[in-house]
Amino acid sequence: MKKFLLLLFISVNCFAQQKYGLAIHGGAGTILKKNMSDEMEAAYREKLDEALKAGYEVLDNGGASADAVIAAIQVMEQSPLFNAGKGAVFTHEGKNEMDASIMTGHDLKAGAVAGVTTIKSPISAAKAVMENSPHVLLTGSGAETFAKEQNLELVDPGYFYTERRWNSLQRAIKRQQTELDHDDKNVEKAPKSSLIYSVPEDFKFGTVGCVALDKNGNLAAGTSTGGMTNKRWNRVGDSPIIGAGTYANNATCAVSATGHGEFFIRSVVAYDISALMEYKGMTLEQAGYEVVNKKLVERGGTGGIISIDTKGNVSMPFNTKGMYRAYKLSDKSSKIAIYEGE
Amino acid sequence: MKKFLLLLFISVNCFAQQKYGLAIHGGAGTILKKNMSDEMEAAYREKLDEALKAGYEVLDNGGASADAVIAAIQVMEQSPLFNAGKGAVFTHEGKNEMDASIMTGHDLKAGAVAGVTTIKSPISAAKAVMENSPHVLLTGSGAETFAKEQNLELVDPGYFYTERRWNSLQRAIKRQQTELDHDDKNVEKAPKSSLIYSVPEDFKFGTVGCVALDKNGNLAAGTSTGGMTNKRWNRVGDSPIIGAGTYANNATCAVSATGHGEFFIRSVVAYDISALMEYKGMTLEQAGYEVVNKKLVERGGTGGIISIDTKGNVSMPFNTKGMYRAYKLSDKSSKIAIYEGE
Repeated sequence: MKKFLLLLFISVNCFAQQKYGLAIHGGAGTILKKNMSDEMEAAYREKLDEALKAGYEVLDNGGASADAVIAAIQVMEQSPLFNAGKGAVFTHEGKNEMDASIMTGHDLKAGAVAGVTTIKSPISAAKAVMENSPHVLLTGSGAETFAKEQNLELVDPGYFYTERRWNSLQRAIKRQQTELDHDDKNVEKAPKSSLIYSVPEDFKFGTVGCVALDKNGNLAAGTSTGGMTNKRWNRVGDSPIIGAGTYANNATCAVSATGHGEFFIRSVVAYDISALMEYKGMTLEQAGYEVVNKKLVERGGTGGIISIDTKGNVSMPFNTKGMYRAYKLSDKSSKIAIYEGE
Repeated sequence: MKKFLLLLFISVNCFAQQKYGLAIHGGAGTILKKNMSDEMEAAYREKLDEALKAGYEVLDNGGASADAVIAAIQVMEQSPLFNAGKGAVFTHEGKNEMDASIMTGHDLKAGAVAGVTTIKSPISAAKAVMENSPHVLLTGSGAETFAKEQNLELVDPGYFYTERRWNSLQRAIKRQQTELDHDDKNVEKAPKSSLIYSVPEDFKFGTVGCVALDKNGNLAAGTSTGGMTNKRWNRVGDSPIIGAGTYANNATCAVSATGHGEFFIRSVVAYDISALMEYKGMTLEQAGYEVVNKKLVERGGTGGIISIDTKGNVSMPFNTKGMYRAYKLSDKSSKIAIYEGE
């Protein structure tokens, strides 16, 4: 009887110990309540909830964290609300060029695509690269050929068109033209790079991402984006860069980032959080704060991250006015939030 | 007189303290003396020496570390001996698709290009991205448009053709065909990814890179490559990925990597060395050993790195049979080596 109780205790304890769940983001930026209609806010909260539930269901049914990441991200890719898949922002040339990546924490495997224009779900292409190619990062038309060989759904580029993002591009182009034409003082003071073209603060954000912990204690992270409105020259941001926009390692954590990608690449943001945990013994929250609220702030990099560790701790720091974010854990805790201080 | 001597002492001391110099690599792999003709070996040593001198001259004249990196790498890009620029390996489709990146340690700025086919010096394009665009990573035809706008030299893709690399591709394709046709046992045992196409051990390497420390104590790192023979789907390796193939930070070190890129991306190799120095207080040599000779070996990632810190310490660890490597420092120490144990 004693033995039985001990076994019961151990199994209940083991079961209790392996929390599972996920966190998602839908981009960070100057998101202010005063600029948001009630309908728009409700639409965002509803879609975040739907993405959360899609991912959670996979985990709850004993599925792998990578599959939960795919399920959650695909809900957001299919929604015009977010800058990923349908709803992706437009390049300077009026195209939608998307990037995505995924990494699994138990084997440190990873896959990514960059600059794809016809793959309906870029995150599913990233997973196919991880599982069915010897490579990590495929780009442009090559990535699309691979996706076709993998029988992934391809769509006409027109599928990604949304009026809202098209109008954003027109505003960005107009603003850039205005700056170049009329603001000679600013042009003189500005660094050489902004003479080429400027990147207004509001046009940087909207990337989606998910980090998940499954019943087997395995972590995964994924990120999907349309990049930056008005981007040129086949620019690639941090989202498809393992270590910058996405990282997962069962020894530490899973991280997905959103923000001004160039700063996130140069600061190797996602891996830096993992390194601070592994090498300095920081908690998930301490490491995220150190990178997002200290290092990035000092360097002028705006944005945020979502993260989860193998104990089911979740941290979602950002240094902007808001970040579409949510989590749902097997201990029944959950949250959906948009603004600072929520 | 006392004052004069004191000033003399201080200036001599200051001068003595700021060592400067650079290290370069021309790729790591199964490089064995028995497979190398005396002429070939002499040609490699001579070209490494030429690259080293070109970079050192910039530093000796008080130039910036980033300019020394460019000077040294361009010598190797223009030589058919190395897998970068002229001499780049061929993709499965018989093209030369090149990647390069550069980072400066005093401001953590970075630039990179991936999948370019007409830019004579990919490393110079990476520097132009860093200095004259708001982006870090540009790819494919967009990167080429940018290079053209920057008045960089463009060439016909035929410029990059070398018979040696073309023959490598034919061998790689033949070997792949043979493996798929006749080696059913191996195919069964192999992971799913190698069913798509295999990457023979000998066809992975040859990337070039340089790390430099200038008279102002500023670090820079750069890497340039043709990638992997027989690569497909616009595959991008670690060379243009900041944190993986290239990283520089005045707080720690400058690193350039060469090897099986996918493993280097997943292990965030270049930044990991910096993180081990910053967070665990390791020396340059300890950190390089930890990543290249322990972590990468455990994970099956073959290759090596070159590194330099702000004190002028140089470390060039690799886990393959050989790595084309060299360094030259202002304290008159220098070395050119190819094989293990040299």
